[in-house]
Amino acid sequence: MRQSFLFTKTRKNSPSDEQAKNAELLIRAGYVHKEMAGVYALLPLGLRTVEKIKNIIREELDAIGSQEIEMTSLQDPDLWRKTNRWDDESVDNWFKTQLKNGTELGVANTHEEPITNMLIDHVSSYRHLPLYVYQFQTKFRNELRAKSGLMRGREFLMKDLYSYSATEEEFESFYEQVAKAYMDIFRRVGLDGYVFRTKAAGGSFTNKFTDEFQAVSNAGEDWIYLDRERGLAINEEVYSEEVAMSEGLDIDSIERLRSIEVGNIFPLETKYSKGVGLTYKDSEGNDQYPIMGSYGIGIGRLLGTVVELLADDNGIILPESISPFKVHLISIGASDEVNQGAQNLYDQLAEKGCEVLWDDRDVSPGQKFNDSDLIGIPYQVVISERLLKNDSYEYKARTSTERLTLGLAEIINKISC
Amino acid sequence: MRQSFLFTKTRKNSPSDEQAKNAELLIRAGYVHKEMAGVYALLPLGLRTVEKIKNIIREELDAIGSQEIEMTSLQDPDLWRKTNRWDDESVDNWFKTQLKNGTELGVANTHEEPITNMLIDHVSSYRHLPLYVYQFQTKFRNELRAKSGLMRGREFLMKDLYSYSATEEEFESFYEQVAKAYMDIFRRVGLDGYVFRTKAAGGSFTNKFTDEFQAVSNAGEDWIYLDRERGLAINEEVYSEEVAMSEGLDIDSIERLRSIEVGNIFPLETKYSKGVGLTYKDSEGNDQYPIMGSYGIGIGRLLGTVVELLADDNGIILPESISPFKVHLISIGASDEVNQGAQNLYDQLAEKGCEVLWDDRDVSPGQKFNDSDLIGIPYQVVISERLLKNDSYEYKARTSTERLTLGLAEIINKISC
Repeated sequence: MRQSFLFTKTRKNSPSDEQAKNAELLIRAGYVHKEMAGVYALLPLGLRTVEKIKNIIREELDAIGSQEIEMTSLQDPDLWRKTNRWDDESVDNWFKTQLKNGTELGVANTHEEPITNMLIDHVSSYRHLPLYVYQFQTKFRNELRAKSGLMRGREFLMKDLYSYSATEEEFESFYEQVAKAYMDIFRRVGLDGYVFRTKAAGGSFTNKFTDEFQAVSNAGEDWIYLDRERGLAINEEVYSEEVAMSEGLDIDSIERLRSIEVGNIFPLETKYSKGVGLTYKDSEGNDQYPIMGSYGIGIGRLLGTVVELLADDNGIILPESISPFKVHLISIGASDEVNQGAQNLYDQLAEKGCEVLWDDRDVSPGQKFNDSDLIGIPYQVVISERLLKNDSYEYKARTSTERLTLGLAEIINKISC
Repeated sequence: MRQSFLFTKTRKNSPSDEQAKNAELLIRAGYVHKEMAGVYALLPLGLRTVEKIKNIIREELDAIGSQEIEMTSLQDPDLWRKTNRWDDESVDNWFKTQLKNGTELGVANTHEEPITNMLIDHVSSYRHLPLYVYQFQTKFRNELRAKSGLMRGREFLMKDLYSYSATEEEFESFYEQVAKAYMDIFRRVGLDGYVFRTKAAGGSFTNKFTDEFQAVSNAGEDWIYLDRERGLAINEEVYSEEVAMSEGLDIDSIERLRSIEVGNIFPLETKYSKGVGLTYKDSEGNDQYPIMGSYGIGIGRLLGTVVELLADDNGIILPESISPFKVHLISIGASDEVNQGAQNLYDQLAEKGCEVLWDDRDVSPGQKFNDSDLIGIPYQVVISERLLKNDSYEYKARTSTERLTLGLAEIINKISC
């Protein structure tokens, strides 16, 4: 894409009420627009990145036998009364609205109840289990404060997966498959080495621990106790030396660190299948409730975390896997030779399937380099009259300070798409 | 995909409160789930179809220079007060909600205001125009009644495109490009010959006609006067013989017909750019307001219209372009030979890039044929022991009654993917 076509402009400052580094950089680079506190719209760069994150998640969840659906935001309170999650005393972050006739409706903050209720039409026998469904769906949460940028939204996109199993063994086996898929997802989006599986509190209806996936970062709201060598952590809320030892951490090498929860997986037992009334006949014809699990990843929070952890003083740094473009082609000067040279390289990279953003704008080289660092596309290629005289291009990885001077064939080879 | 894996089941009856044929069939076939009146969730078959419709629209809009974004549902009333569209007297279908501190918020029913407001950060010069942005975004509309299935939702996915131009000529040129793209979209999703560009009322702020795209159908809520030969129509709300003549219709060949509005395009002049305060400097340095247009297609309504118009007594009929799968492979019997033959055909079609739903379920042949007709995948291929003895398969298009008996090579050739 030519950058002169891209309608977004970079900016020097983010909105004065924006305190979080992730949102500040994403706004300044033109990935997102702040609609209000905790509510961000996706601009073309942000949408491209989010679609790539979604596709990585989709691939990993499809590979373990999950099926994608898309539930709705508007919700009938009667359904949520069945599980005692309608009243503001039990769930304190509902956004509620009403129909013209005064009937109250909910704007969904999660989807255990509607998905379980929908399955009543489709599950009746043990032969229909296990069953894994997920969606990318907007969640609305009436947070009292929303000051962490994309980390804690009032409206945000979430991947939520729900499992329905006939036996505890089947449930546990899938739970571990998701845990593994989650680590693969976090690695693929650029968080390799940052994220640790973390034991946390199980909530009101189970004595078990649940699992969180915590990314070590000073921008986090959580504290974890991490045994880095063993790759295990415990959330401060359930930490004690006894717990640490029982979970196999080495007490002597534990660090206490700030972290961001980038994903979580919960055993739900039969709370929601019982509450909503989803049953199946077992092989002996008896009614049973499926054992459930839920598995969440907030997409905006995941992007925000990548930005918090990988950015440098000059701006965003995105890995190839989720960058809106793979190559930032920067043409210096607007002579016919430079334009033809840039077009030629653009075409050859496009032919290889490379997504290229070509900065063809009539602005200073300095502004182009600053904008390129701010936007954070992984590879930068410069073309100018001076370089063209030697039939060469300048190549620099966003994460490196080394500038390589390469010929056309070399640069095409260097960039694998 | 193996049908035994697909979690949805077909059903004989739709919910008793469902009156619309489109929703009835889509529910019975397992494409959608009815959450409440006017609110439908997408199940795997429905989601696959909707994604294909979105991709067709995306291709056509990208081809005319539009850029995709994704705005938010939660909206600050202050923005909508600027255009006098917050009060219930001026806009009667808001869903409203509030923050914990009592601040009222809107749940967006459209996006002229937020997109125009977002552009204040990105547009300042005539060099930044024209500019075309679109999104696929959920709209929430507090309809008094919602009885037309997917045709009139309280929550539904819409493609909305907005144009910002410096001159009237530029605006009109793009408006006509969208009109052409819309006809291409309707043709590609299977509505060729059904949809007519229709003059309609321009709303409160313009004397011009706007353009609707009306699909002739008895399930429609509108009436149009159609000159089929000239491919022109006029909405009853603005029809008169004078209007018909001035628009070039032949009075003597006009039919009055029921129709479904599947798309619309509106000149907005400078109503929203003025209201929200989006200006740009023209080439002489003077502040100007961009001339706007808006262009909508309801995705669920479009799917509902295809179902209403193409279905027969046995169920849904979808064209290849938007069907969740291209081939429905039906294996009769569960012998090793049948399973191997089916797997072999499945693999060969998959290698060609064909999406195949393989009905490998342990149910009667009659139920498989009925379900296949109900789901409406365009091509059915049957494999059975009897057929395998002659090294042959049975092939039938969903729209035809003719069953062809073909060899493996013939059937692979027959199906182009």
